[in-house]
Amino acid sequence: MIAGRPIAFQGENGRTFDNRDTPKITTIAVNFLTNSEQLEALLPERFELTGTPIVTVFASYMTEIEWLAGRGYNILGVSFPVTFKGERDHVRGSFLTVLWENLADPIITGREELGYAKIYCELPEPTVLRGERHCIASWLGFKFLDMTVKNLRQQSPEEIAAFERSQTGDGVLHYKYIPKTGEWGSADVAYATLTPAASPNRVIKERWVGEGRVQFHKARWEDMPTQFTIVNTFYDLEIKEYRGASMMKTVGAKDLSDQRILR
Amino acid sequence: MIAGRPIAFQGENGRTFDNRDTPKITTIAVNFLTNSEQLEALLPERFELTGTPIVTVFASYMTEIEWLAGRGYNILGVSFPVTFKGERDHVRGSFLTVLWENLADPIITGREELGYAKIYCELPEPTVLRGERHCIASWLGFKFLDMTVKNLRQQSPEEIAAFERSQTGDGVLHYKYIPKTGEWGSADVAYATLTPAASPNRVIKERWVGEGRVQFHKARWEDMPTQFTIVNTFYDLEIKEYRGASMMKTVGAKDLSDQRILR
Amino acid sequence: MIAGRPIAFQGENGRTFDNRDTPKITTIAVNFLTNSEQLEALLPERFELTGTPIVTVFASYMTEIEWLAGRGYNILGVSFPVTFKGERDHVRGSFLTVLWENLADPIITGREELGYAKIYCELPEPTVLRGERHCIASWLGFKFLDMTVKNLRQQSPEEIAAFERSQTGDGVLHYKYIPKTGEWGSADVAYATLTPAASPNRVIKERWVGEGRVQFHKARWEDMPTQFTIVNTFYDLEIKEYRGASMMKTVGAKDLSDQRILR
Amino acid sequence: MIAGRPIAFQGENGRTFDNRDTPKITTIAVNFLTNSEQLEALLPERFELTGTPIVTVFASYMTEIEWLAGRGYNILGVSFPVTFKGERDHVRGSFLTVLWENLADPIITGREELGYAKIYCELPEPTVLRGERHCIASWLGFKFLDMTVKNLRQQSPEEIAAFERSQTGDGVLHYKYIPKTGEWGSADVAYATLTPAASPNRVIKERWVGEGRVQFHKARWEDMPTQFTIVNTFYDLEIKEYRGASMMKTVGAKDLSDQRILR
Repeated sequence: MIAGRPIAFQGENGRTFDNRDTPKITTIAVNFLTNSEQLEALLPERFELTGTPIVTVFASYMTEIEWLAGRGYNILGVSFPVTFKGERDHVRGSFLTVLWENLADPIITGREELGYAKIYCELPEPTVLRGERHCIASWLGFKFLDMTVKNLRQQSPEEIAAFERSQTGDGVLHYKYIPKTGEWGSADVAYATLTPAASPNRVIKERWVGEGRVQFHKARWEDMPTQFTIVNTFYDLEIKEYRGASMMKTVGAKDLSDQRILR
Repeated sequence: MIAGRPIAFQGENGRTFDNRDTPKITTIAVNFLTNSEQLEALLPERFELTGTPIVTVFASYMTEIEWLAGRGYNILGVSFPVTFKGERDHVRGSFLTVLWENLADPIITGREELGYAKIYCELPEPTVLRGERHCIASWLGFKFLDMTVKNLRQQSPEEIAAFERSQTGDGVLHYKYIPKTGEWGSADVAYATLTPAASPNRVIKERWVGEGRVQFHKARWEDMPTQFTIVNTFYDLEIKEYRGASMMKTVGAKDLSDQRILR
Repeated sequence: MIAGRPIAFQGENGRTFDNRDTPKITTIAVNFLTNSEQLEALLPERFELTGTPIVTVFASYMTEIEWLAGRGYNILGVSFPVTFKGERDHVRGSFLTVLWENLADPIITGREELGYAKIYCELPEPTVLRGERHCIASWLGFKFLDMTVKNLRQQSPEEIAAFERSQTGDGVLHYKYIPKTGEWGSADVAYATLTPAASPNRVIKERWVGEGRVQFHKARWEDMPTQFTIVNTFYDLEIKEYRGASMMKTVGAKDLSDQRILR
Repeated sequence: MIAGRPIAFQGENGRTFDNRDTPKITTIAVNFLTNSEQLEALLPERFELTGTPIVTVFASYMTEIEWLAGRGYNILGVSFPVTFKGERDHVRGSFLTVLWENLADPIITGREELGYAKIYCELPEPTVLRGERHCIASWLGFKFLDMTVKNLRQQSPEEIAAFERSQTGDGVLHYKYIPKTGEWGSADVAYATLTPAASPNRVIKERWVGEGRVQFHKARWEDMPTQFTIVNTFYDLEIKEYRGASMMKTVGAKDLSDQRILR
């Protein structure tokens, strides 16, 4: 079946996409050092924090997406380095604790096909003022994030190549959970998934490094009744020290058909 | 676990809602006679078309929803009468082929907890002009539905009571489907679910009957790449004859914890 | 000429509207006592503060507007009692310092035909939770107002009639200002206007009184570059004491063709 | 006074903007040959159609706008070549019959300070699919324009220089009209204005030429009650032959303080 399409409307499209010169993606990311204890509290079973407890908050602004007939959408994620130690699989990578997106269609398929922890928020284009880029995120009028990067210095092709070589993890880790209808508390689906690191079509066109700041805003239940616990978890994360920020422009992607269950 | 909340952010809220005087819902519905064959093509296994092939297109505009801290959202559904003949369960009701909603948060939980075939679209408030109410639905700027009701006549309390007695089905039927990650074509979840008809807190405050018209607009893949097959299925449905339209105002709801799997 | 329509596209519509059973308007208002000095600083020439310096912040949620073919839109205003002492006219009423609206079309005609100080913001429907109604206003993601009313008590027909008799001013006062192109600092138009109080078609259907709170949020230039001085003026207004809040449902309006220049 | 800011909130900002490396603008334009008679019907007094009756429909997507603290917005205009023969001024340029914008703040100041015939619509980013760029425009859910460009060929620096030399008009012409309040049918302001062609900070970074198509969609009064006559005027314009299309990326702008009245 085609995920995210009600059963009444299946039937093949027969479309394939090459994802070669598109999509175009600009990603802004800020890293900070925090407490191991606070991150460990977020881990599912069989996940362990790996190395220095550095959190990455990133926002990607995507255009020319072929499977959306050339439209774009934006995403905002929070991740940190982990190891998954399963019965079969032993992988190291980034645990994507949550991924906000500003369009429901990829949220549905991303959650159900791939196991991404996608939820919704508003993600307008970043503002750019005298060299400072400012990303915001809000939910029905409540702004829960300000993230800025500035003093960006463009990297040389050699520096970009070195950056690519430094990306050595196995990929991005997720935890797919679908409750069992009517048997509240038990699950239809509960497993970790992996987005393997390889993305042969993706090319980094430009990359900058600089300084960044992240500020989550404390939400009351009334402000974000479905998401306040998530936002407040990040609000409560201690920022011991910023560890760099970046902006990167890439083209190309993969269709994620290599997404797989970790056991 | 709390559905729709990433695993990293579980932890109880301890909130309960009584759903007694809220939400407030205005529902506009139009019915038409179509071909049995066209509806049968939409049925999952073990579902059968029941009685006259009458399709109902309905839009509900909801406010004062307690679990959204008093916000509202809108929905648009298409259903027709079916019987589910399972190994254990034998139920009669409406098959909700698709339910569009204009807010992602209830789409996620509705799909994953309850098995509703929810997807996203824009659903602005209906316009009201000289007695005609006009509902529209669009997706990223492509309007795929115009639905109007007019010549509405308000019903007496006796007529409303008679209408309520005439609602004899077992409830609303759904088909929950979640693909298995990485094993494309096979399923993690594939079962029918039932929303039982009983909704003790719901009270019909006012109801009108009149004339209505429904027009789905043919979409190209480029117009609605994730949903064009759905919209075009309805565009292709023959409208042999309209079979009445209504507007209804209700207060109260249930928390849907009685949703159950059909076997 | 038809205001707000470019000169290239004039030509009569021939439409008239009776504004009798529509629009339907729900207005939430909160009053507070402040400093005379702070209000006097906001007054144009020939305007004087009258009586007790009580500011009213009101939000109206309008549906079934005939000239918008049955659509609705929402407004948010701030006013206080003044007297205009012109050469010819001597009128007493409310000075509408600013009127935010969430639709550009009536902003344009309201400014240019009528002299209203209309500007744009987002004005979602108020939330309603356990008897508390909560209005918010934002501009491109920056929320600049929270206003709540609660403990509302519905008034009797006699109380509503008494309320109507107590409304004795001449109407709502505005200041229309249009700069002269290219002669920066001088004006094409600079005069006060009056919306006379009479609105024969308007009927109060229901009214409640209760308690309210208003909170404007301090904006940086970066948050609201076109409006931060406005929002900060209200943020700085001392709230000495709240002086009641109300909610009111009305039907009917007037076409404002009685709007006139004050001299 | 500062235009578009209510009189109660004047007071200087003291901000100046250099508009040198920003804004960044991508403009897509399609030209077509039509009937002289149809264009002449759109001309105000003292305007004459000049040369071949070629209409340009253009959409600009702007980011990093300094006076909006780094935000962006989008515009859609329709223009054709004219001569203005006033008592004093005799200028040749493009008459901008209407300019849609998707943000109210610049609409207000553009109309009142500058005399631009700005009105509101929704203008999402164009989609880009296999080399075809597709612009749409809608108003509260009614899509009134599809415009596409394809087979784009990038121009050399020499071709761009030649293009710049070919732009010989005096600028863009407008007609500013503000009705007199209460004296319906007479005007406070009625004069032509000019945006002089010179824009020293603007640099064309890249330019492409190719094929384009424009389709306005017929609107009923119910679809666009404030704008249907405008859209239908363009819908009715005969497209005798397309005369090229282009895409252009520019940086830099001017503050429009050279805007002046034509007499």
